[in-house]
Amino acid sequence: VIRKSSETIEEIREGMRGGDGLVIVRHLFRKEEFKANVRLCARLLLPPGASIGEHTHEAEDEVYIVIHGTGLLRDGSKETRVSPGDAILTGRGQSHAIRNDGTHDLELIAMIMCYA
Amino acid sequence: VIRKSSETIEEIREGMRGGDGLVIVRHLFRKEEFKANVRLCARLLLPPGASIGEHTHEAEDEVYIVIHGTGLLRDGSKETRVSPGDAILTGRGQSHAIRNDGTHDLELIAMIMCYA
Repeated sequence: VIRKSSETIEEIREGMRGGDGLVIVRHLFRKEEFKANVRLCARLLLPPGASIGEHTHEAEDEVYIVIHGTGLLRDGSKETRVSPGDAILTGRGQSHAIRNDGTHDLELIAMIMCYA
Repeated sequence: VIRKSSETIEEIREGMRGGDGLVIVRHLFRKEEFKANVRLCARLLLPPGASIGEHTHEAEDEVYIVIHGTGLLRDGSKETRVSPGDAILTGRGQSHAIRNDGTHDLELIAMIMCYA
């Protein structure tokens, strides 16, 4: 299944996971399109000032991969500046959060894989 | 776990899956770092002229997401020109291939999730 960028389903999330501003979620493939247990495969766009609040992942692993822009990524209690090519893996009850504290859009790939 | 771009493990594959030239595979997270059943999470760089040959995925789903550049993506018997933001999902015994027929590097995210 090829999904052109223009065919993605766009969802606008306000205060995502308790964060600030709007996050644009562009779903590349729906959960039902996978046979593997994947519940999210999306591009996330955080405009300047936007954030995804801190939240945990219990029975699933989430990967963020930074594509464009820079931001502040929280991995548990540790905060790191990230830029394109940087990634985070969160699961096993760990928490993460991300904030665009820059002046350009921050774009990520996000994928969530469930354990069972 | 935060993985900075500079910390990725780089692997150079020649004639990947029967394709042409070299493909640089930058592993973001190893299989062992996931609790979910993910066996590849990488950035792939195909210089101009490079390709990944046609191959099938039986008991796993693979997602490619184009990050930079353009190329020719084969989905079964169908060929489509792709550019940044375009994606492909391949599994259930389907096949795919990709070729950088342009003059700039083609960069993808690739993730493989096993069914069991």
